[in-house]
Amino acid sequence: MEYKAVKLVKRPTLNITPDLFEVVTLETAELQEGEVLLKQTHMSLDPAMKGWMSPDTNSYIPPVGLGEIMRSSGVAEVIESKNEAFPVGAQVMGMIGWTEYAVSTGEGVQVLPPGLPADAVLSVLALPGLTAYQGLMNMANPKAGETLVVSGAAGSVGSMVGQIAKAEGLRVIGTAGSDEKCRWLEDELGFDKAINYKTANLEEALAEAAPEGVDVYFENTGGPVQLAVFDLMNAHGRIIVCGMIADYNTDTPAPGPNWISIIKKRLTIQGFAMPDHWDQVPDMSQKMAHYWMNGQVKFRAHKLQGLESAIEGINLLFTGGNNGKLMVEL
Amino acid sequence: MEYKAVKLVKRPTLNITPDLFEVVTLETAELQEGEVLLKQTHMSLDPAMKGWMSPDTNSYIPPVGLGEIMRSSGVAEVIESKNEAFPVGAQVMGMIGWTEYAVSTGEGVQVLPPGLPADAVLSVLALPGLTAYQGLMNMANPKAGETLVVSGAAGSVGSMVGQIAKAEGLRVIGTAGSDEKCRWLEDELGFDKAINYKTANLEEALAEAAPEGVDVYFENTGGPVQLAVFDLMNAHGRIIVCGMIADYNTDTPAPGPNWISIIKKRLTIQGFAMPDHWDQVPDMSQKMAHYWMNGQVKFRAHKLQGLESAIEGINLLFTGGNNGKLMVEL
Repeated sequence: MEYKAVKLVKRPTLNITPDLFEVVTLETAELQEGEVLLKQTHMSLDPAMKGWMSPDTNSYIPPVGLGEIMRSSGVAEVIESKNEAFPVGAQVMGMIGWTEYAVSTGEGVQVLPPGLPADAVLSVLALPGLTAYQGLMNMANPKAGETLVVSGAAGSVGSMVGQIAKAEGLRVIGTAGSDEKCRWLEDELGFDKAINYKTANLEEALAEAAPEGVDVYFENTGGPVQLAVFDLMNAHGRIIVCGMIADYNTDTPAPGPNWISIIKKRLTIQGFAMPDHWDQVPDMSQKMAHYWMNGQVKFRAHKLQGLESAIEGINLLFTGGNNGKLMVEL
Repeated sequence: MEYKAVKLVKRPTLNITPDLFEVVTLETAELQEGEVLLKQTHMSLDPAMKGWMSPDTNSYIPPVGLGEIMRSSGVAEVIESKNEAFPVGAQVMGMIGWTEYAVSTGEGVQVLPPGLPADAVLSVLALPGLTAYQGLMNMANPKAGETLVVSGAAGSVGSMVGQIAKAEGLRVIGTAGSDEKCRWLEDELGFDKAINYKTANLEEALAEAAPEGVDVYFENTGGPVQLAVFDLMNAHGRIIVCGMIADYNTDTPAPGPNWISIIKKRLTIQGFAMPDHWDQVPDMSQKMAHYWMNGQVKFRAHKLQGLESAIEGINLLFTGGNNGKLMVEL
């Protein structure tokens, strides 16, 4: 059976442009013993992909090889199987890539409980939810009553961070790039305050929203929010650095704050990346499923249509043009 | 009995200038029950004093009040006593201040084992040694075989950090501000490499000295060393921020590095200040005494003479003009 896939053929210099990719038509191979044929239904687009395309050898995961199918996680249906762990008709999640079909040995592929909507899987149980949980609950040591600021709050990770923090009893302030996103954060997700960083006087708005200072800062963006929040950190504050999306598409990344406050306030700043924490995924998935079943985390999905829509669509993540978890419906 | 003391009468705006201080002549009071009269013999001068003089309310310890005797630690002899825990003739250590004599209730004052040279006490067992131990051993989780860089390596804290790290089996690289200091670090203290940051090509010299990258960076200075070391950090590297002496005497502190590498390399950056760790002091003093008795830590003292020499002399800490632990002999 013929299907389409997208290969990475060139590395980005600054922006992600269509010439980095090549759409190819492939033929599904005969299954070997132990293999399954997956038909992907929902493909996740995440900011981390920029790093996966880049030649940088300092990153936490090897880049996608040139000529290889672009890496991504997704939800798929098993349509043929020579592996009893993956019955035909099962819904699965895994690193499937930018492709309509994939043959897999089942390694790194998980069968999902029946009846889970694919968009909830990609938003809550997959990378965004796990990343939010790891950074906030396993690293930042949040305590009820403390004040948290999350940048990129309407993003797939940020929206989960804020909602988990609310579920855990923190005061939650988010920054986002449009009034519509801010209304969603406050009205639908229950953030105590959402600030449009493009139009607000950031220093004033943050100081007003956090009258007792900031105990935990969950950093997804960098940019002006970083400096403004840094000045409001309380003694013994914790900063979790998860993303710097404002600086991914520039070759002159903005400098960070001076380190004197790190001493005066005895701050801890920690970076992390999920590949260091795969062993905790089953436990974290359960925790996220629990919040979801309790109605404590909501999501919205921004769905593109068709494999090739990923090529241009991924840039929505860097312009802030997406409203909700970005994914491609196949 | 008449004695001299130095009061803080003005807060520094940028530099520490003589007009911030007033030398006063006081009279020792009659001892009350429980009190002791201390004759200070050695008074410590430390970079932290700049912060103690400053109005900044964000710091880890309240500033010295205007009109109060300037704060400092020192070694003293008990010359009169109405407190049996402090017999006449005992040598003690405590926060005695810029004064020749002091009446104390004994609170915060420790009796020292007999026979310890006062300069060793102030260099190894007092603030510098404790600070080095806390930051390196209790926070940075150093492992034998790892590579450590310490800035301000010839300073009172930096020289202890490097020697403790050597004792614990790390590869130790230090930066300092003169060739003489670098020779002392390599020839006397056993550093694997010392780099004169004023004359070396920092990036090249550090890369050559740390061919396997840097696992632990102990930051005492800020400035150009910070950015150069930051680029060499290994994955899961730890940065301990203890001092930023390059930025204390400027009103335009230099920006820090961009945070993208914090994610890519999953770095942890931690600031600390000793007042958070007083409860661990007895344990840490023992550990430092142990290194010292084993000949694993050496020191050199830069001794000024007479109380009033502190007023101009403290600036040696900010110009790098001191060679060794700065103290005043009274």
